[in-house]
Amino acid sequence: MRAAVLRDGAIAVRDDVPEPVPGAGQVLVQVKACGICGSDLHFAEHGADALALGKQIEGVPRDHAAPEPLDLSRDVFLGHEFAGEILEVGPDTDTLPVGTPVVSYPVLLRADGPAEQIVYSNRINGGYGERLLLSAPLLLRVPNGLPLHLAALTEPMSVGLHGVNRSRIEQDETAVVLGCGPVGLAVVAALKVRGVKRIIAADLSPARRALAEVLGATDVVDPRDETAWTRAGVAKPLVVFEAIGVPGVLDDILRCAPSRSRVIVVGVCMNNDTINPYFGVSKELSVEFVLGYSRKEFAASLRSIAEGEIDVAPLVTARIGLDEVQWAFGALRNPEEHCKIIVEP
Amino acid sequence: MRAAVLRDGAIAVRDDVPEPVPGAGQVLVQVKACGICGSDLHFAEHGADALALGKQIEGVPRDHAAPEPLDLSRDVFLGHEFAGEILEVGPDTDTLPVGTPVVSYPVLLRADGPAEQIVYSNRINGGYGERLLLSAPLLLRVPNGLPLHLAALTEPMSVGLHGVNRSRIEQDETAVVLGCGPVGLAVVAALKVRGVKRIIAADLSPARRALAEVLGATDVVDPRDETAWTRAGVAKPLVVFEAIGVPGVLDDILRCAPSRSRVIVVGVCMNNDTINPYFGVSKELSVEFVLGYSRKEFAASLRSIAEGEIDVAPLVTARIGLDEVQWAFGALRNPEEHCKIIVEP
Repeated sequence: MRAAVLRDGAIAVRDDVPEPVPGAGQVLVQVKACGICGSDLHFAEHGADALALGKQIEGVPRDHAAPEPLDLSRDVFLGHEFAGEILEVGPDTDTLPVGTPVVSYPVLLRADGPAEQIVYSNRINGGYGERLLLSAPLLLRVPNGLPLHLAALTEPMSVGLHGVNRSRIEQDETAVVLGCGPVGLAVVAALKVRGVKRIIAADLSPARRALAEVLGATDVVDPRDETAWTRAGVAKPLVVFEAIGVPGVLDDILRCAPSRSRVIVVGVCMNNDTINPYFGVSKELSVEFVLGYSRKEFAASLRSIAEGEIDVAPLVTARIGLDEVQWAFGALRNPEEHCKIIVEP
Repeated sequence: MRAAVLRDGAIAVRDDVPEPVPGAGQVLVQVKACGICGSDLHFAEHGADALALGKQIEGVPRDHAAPEPLDLSRDVFLGHEFAGEILEVGPDTDTLPVGTPVVSYPVLLRADGPAEQIVYSNRINGGYGERLLLSAPLLLRVPNGLPLHLAALTEPMSVGLHGVNRSRIEQDETAVVLGCGPVGLAVVAALKVRGVKRIIAADLSPARRALAEVLGATDVVDPRDETAWTRAGVAKPLVVFEAIGVPGVLDDILRCAPSRSRVIVVGVCMNNDTINPYFGVSKELSVEFVLGYSRKEFAASLRSIAEGEIDVAPLVTARIGLDEVQWAFGALRNPEEHCKIIVEP
């Protein structure tokens, strides 16, 4: 079967990928749509650095870690924002019928070994291929006839929902969302669903600010003209979502945010970053680093999209085939042109 | 009257300080004891940097800010860990009788102007002088015949209590306290009072580790031999108190602490500090910067000390006169010799 893989930092399309065979508790799914995530772009460019950094970290739970270390000198399968249809059910597996449109929390369970995250792998195929294996207990039926290129946004929207849930923001608190890439926009959407009355979103790109308004931002600011802090106006604590993920942003937030603000870091900065802790101390700020989402949050995001609470259609700026993935990795660097590109293998 | 003041980065003793006169709502207090705080040492050495840094910060509430900027070219009064006896009551002021032993939340209220923190000032005297003005509504009677050189520890112990309260630590969670200076020791004491069952304290100094055990640490570690992380053993989330306050510590915590740990920054690092946010993201850590304490926490600390819940006596390693303050600023740099030095003007 065909799949787009990461090879030497670029995307190559293969047509000789072995057909996956579902084991007990697994299903084979025909991929209908898979979003390209910013983390895939980052991994293509800085994968070696990310792996080296990961090795320095202690105290990480190993439950969903890859059962063998990733080898960047071999092809890497990508694609974790997928939606598809069940093609075949593994032996002794009681699950949804063949033909059911599904999404899944991106973990592959095995009857005879450790679970593996479906994110980057030398062994298991992701959503940038024609077919992939999923775990029967994690499947969710896509309801309401929701088109699968929209159901594929369940995963990125879950990331925003998780950040908002971790913030414990109240409806009367003011949210500031710095950065309106897909993660920032997912945060805006989740804030709207939660009923937060004032949502200030900041981004340099007019197209991204327009999307933030569509998803529920009550105020948008161009940081070249006005900061989110002056737009917020009042000195009461803010709930600030850092969705930019480049060095310097966190220090600027600590320096500028009002006393007792809570900062939720949803952007992933893998570079060393300099902060002055005194800025945080002097105003008793808190910084919460968040990652991923729970199965419950994943299901809640699917429901929000399928029931029309969140209109994800405006985020999708292109639908492409496997041969255009390499093009898309470049095109996504221009926020004026593209936001979420969906691969339809 | 006499007072030790900060002049050109060193301590000078003056005997020509004008006698303070209590206004409405104020009392004149004879200082019986005043602890030397690590922040006083830091301010003596890096006061100009601290003021410059403070000017960069936005979003700080101005309620208790000094009504005029501090001028380091003039004498600076210091001393915020004081205890004394009421000598004289201002006009139209209903308060405790003359002779009552008191401590006070260190803010001077004025009938005709803004309140001012009693910490560093060109205008109002602190606890490194024979007498100072306090605010009648903020006075607390020192109960149970508690000696005033111990009552003076109400303030530093409040800092620890505040950090522990902000952490919302449960009794069954494991606390790690990095750094056993007076702030770290105050954290250990407050954790013990809260009923936390496992308190791991780390410090390079054997004397400081011994004090940590006296105050309630269940485990002490010398970081040269063993880290607090290996001593904690289990991979469940920890509540980590950063009470060292030097660059590099926060990044090390982010790298090593188990997933979902909460980091409470009670140490004040005024230097730029480099962290890798990815360490925090990958384990969903949170970092809470804390400062000061509430009036309620101040009162609770006095109660804990006076009722014998916290035995602060072992912390006091010297009791000196005004002429020895300069000596004490040097002596406190050796953690083996000294912990808390009390000035008795």
